[in-house]
Amino acid sequence: MQTVIIGSGNVAYHIAKALTLKGVSPAQIFGRNEAELKNISEELHIPYSTEHLEDADLYLICVSDNAVESVSKMIMKKDALVAHTSGSLPKEILAGEYRKSSFYPLQTFSKSKELEYEKIPFFIEAENESDKNILFELASRISENVMESDHEKRKYIHLTAVFACNFVNHLFSRAKEISDSQEIPFDYFLPLIDETVQKIHEIEPKKAQTGPAVRNDLRVLALHEKLLKDESLEIYKTMNHSIQKMYEL
Amino acid sequence: MQTVIIGSGNVAYHIAKALTLKGVSPAQIFGRNEAELKNISEELHIPYSTEHLEDADLYLICVSDNAVESVSKMIMKKDALVAHTSGSLPKEILAGEYRKSSFYPLQTFSKSKELEYEKIPFFIEAENESDKNILFELASRISENVMESDHEKRKYIHLTAVFACNFVNHLFSRAKEISDSQEIPFDYFLPLIDETVQKIHEIEPKKAQTGPAVRNDLRVLALHEKLLKDESLEIYKTMNHSIQKMYEL
Repeated sequence: MQTVIIGSGNVAYHIAKALTLKGVSPAQIFGRNEAELKNISEELHIPYSTEHLEDADLYLICVSDNAVESVSKMIMKKDALVAHTSGSLPKEILAGEYRKSSFYPLQTFSKSKELEYEKIPFFIEAENESDKNILFELASRISENVMESDHEKRKYIHLTAVFACNFVNHLFSRAKEISDSQEIPFDYFLPLIDETVQKIHEIEPKKAQTGPAVRNDLRVLALHEKLLKDESLEIYKTMNHSIQKMYEL
Repeated sequence: MQTVIIGSGNVAYHIAKALTLKGVSPAQIFGRNEAELKNISEELHIPYSTEHLEDADLYLICVSDNAVESVSKMIMKKDALVAHTSGSLPKEILAGEYRKSSFYPLQTFSKSKELEYEKIPFFIEAENESDKNILFELASRISENVMESDHEKRKYIHLTAVFACNFVNHLFSRAKEISDSQEIPFDYFLPLIDETVQKIHEIEPKKAQTGPAVRNDLRVLALHEKLLKDESLEIYKTMNHSIQKMYEL
């Protein structure tokens, strides 16, 4: 089966790499950014093009959500299977006469960070059983954790991921901003952060909550508010309010 | 050196346990909650009391912030060293004629969750070099990572920890609430969460940010807002606003 990957960003790179490592190297990576394509091509020994889209059985569209529709119009092969990799788009966004599907990896991808591909949950949606099998087979080469998901469920998976990953990372950014402002090395906080996450492998997060808000320690909350301003102060108030609501304080 | 631990909560338990494991078992644990004291006493083989506070060279006050002052008044021994374990209180909160100090472990403690004590950063403050040495020596039995910190710096360390730990855990709670509402197992998100944290061991969090807000994907942001309500919606808006401000979007 000939597979072409469209895109040259973090997802495109890691999907291409994972497939290559499992011996099902894509026939081509296609995109606009020649410099990025060239880097990927050189590292993974996959041909690239910015102009001519190779004929393939399967096209994996690994571009940002707002580019999926326009990119999908470039695929003219009617007997192809086309999948996007977005958490929030329906497969119907794909605007062509081919078979439409979704191939969603639940992970945060950065080119410079290696990943254990085996553990990434993949969520598959297709028009029929045969296409579903093609995508299951491919995802199972990469990961031990492949499931079906329709668009409705996938939206909520993506939304949950935004809270559990994107927002968590942003809290780390704001935390580092605070510690940097006092010349406190952010490394001091890594054991605490590691433990915070290890904990929820064993204890439900609601039961693992600690800190001044859940203790209803109003003195500390008032003291902290005086140390903060702007967005960090807004986050501080919003999070504490939410904690106090959750625990009915 | 005789050490007494005051308190029967998560911090008291883990400090008592860490000291016991390193062969410097406390002479007593003292507190109000007899059931908890009894559990700790039986597990760690440390005498406990709810009434008679043992004579000691060092008292470690491991109670919640708003109880520190009143508890500190119970210590009558003038030639003792007394330390609280709070991130946000000054050592002067201790209301007695003894020598005052602070012994702050930067970690999140739950009784049911084992910890690698060696990695916990301890922050020490004392009135003089000799007391500082006593506390450094004790903390170094537990941890490889012992530092000095005055109250001003400690306040910011604690505040950073609230963002990096307490708020992160609350995001996990709200994330689980969303996935639970759709009967999506929260376990699916653990590889993503683990990776989110592994990443910041290698990449600065500001550079590791992914997700719809930093991509300025207004379509997804609007779609997600429709799926949320109440506190989760407030968090969603506040976090996205903060991300967009940080990246000047």
